[in-house]
Amino acid sequence: MDTYRAIVTKRDTRVYDGRPIPEEVLTRILNAGRMAGSAKAAQPVRLIVVREQARKEALAACGRFTPHVPAAAAVVALVLVPEADQPPGQFAIFRGPFDAGRAAQNIMLAAWEEGITSCPASTHDNDGAAKVLGLPPGHVVANLIALGYPGGADPVTGNRPRMALDGYAHFETWPA
Amino acid sequence: MDTYRAIVTKRDTRVYDGRPIPEEVLTRILNAGRMAGSAKAAQPVRLIVVREQARKEALAACGRFTPHVPAAAAVVALVLVPEADQPPGQFAIFRGPFDAGRAAQNIMLAAWEEGITSCPASTHDNDGAAKVLGLPPGHVVANLIALGYPGGADPVTGNRPRMALDGYAHFETWPA
Repeated sequence: MDTYRAIVTKRDTRVYDGRPIPEEVLTRILNAGRMAGSAKAAQPVRLIVVREQARKEALAACGRFTPHVPAAAAVVALVLVPEADQPPGQFAIFRGPFDAGRAAQNIMLAAWEEGITSCPASTHDNDGAAKVLGLPPGHVVANLIALGYPGGADPVTGNRPRMALDGYAHFETWPA
Repeated sequence: MDTYRAIVTKRDTRVYDGRPIPEEVLTRILNAGRMAGSAKAAQPVRLIVVREQARKEALAACGRFTPHVPAAAAVVALVLVPEADQPPGQFAIFRGPFDAGRAAQNIMLAAWEEGITSCPASTHDNDGAAKVLGLPPGHVVANLIALGYPGGADPVTGNRPRMALDGYAHFETWPA
């Protein structure tokens, strides 16, 4: 699928058909995340792939909008490691999550090209999620990505429209 | 270019050849950003495209690692608008920047498919950047993206290698 088509057709959807993701496809998807750039090439993002049912459910219990997570074929947790130039457990307020977002989008677009849909989910209970995944101190879950082959219409998002381009993009300065 | 190939060949590079980006190509790139999903479909990201030389230089002066910014054909500022469920001027610590990272990656991949390279840059002086762009109170620049046709080898990054996949991606839990 060409890149632009993957970008504009990708939707965050939450209904999966239960089929597992073949290992070689999963590897390709994880590799897409790995290749995302990062500020100062700090590479602050790591992934943990969760497929065991009990662990998917435990992760889902750490978020408020996660009913789709246990049914995902795989849940990818985006973990931020402490950055060398930040105090322990701290992340540049925009930089780490921004880099996690870059990796997440690579992962979701590579998945979509393989016919796999996805939806991010926040872990509002970050300490709980860290415990489920056995993270060392100072590491934090930036987000989860649920991945799976599409299983039908999404009851939450449908085909959620986006704002028009002329309200989204401006030129030179914020419009008066 | 197929999506996976765009993802794994994209590098953040800082040397541009000075050619302008045709309007229809720029529109396509901006649209790629627009189509990025966002948490709770809040759509917190807006773009400001800067091409005036003085304004590119003023933005560059707001960051510490921005020598490439004034030579970009276009600089796209990713702006976070205040979210309705957050106090004024506040953003969910991971959510807004994460969504900005998703949009940024869409923008940079769509650009790369068009033969345009890119590199994000942080605005360490966020108040200064907001002033340059005339942002309303409570709006903040999450990041800049410099865009341009490649102008040669990048003196900073070269072809910066990534960590190996087995150190990047783990399964079920953090490795013991």
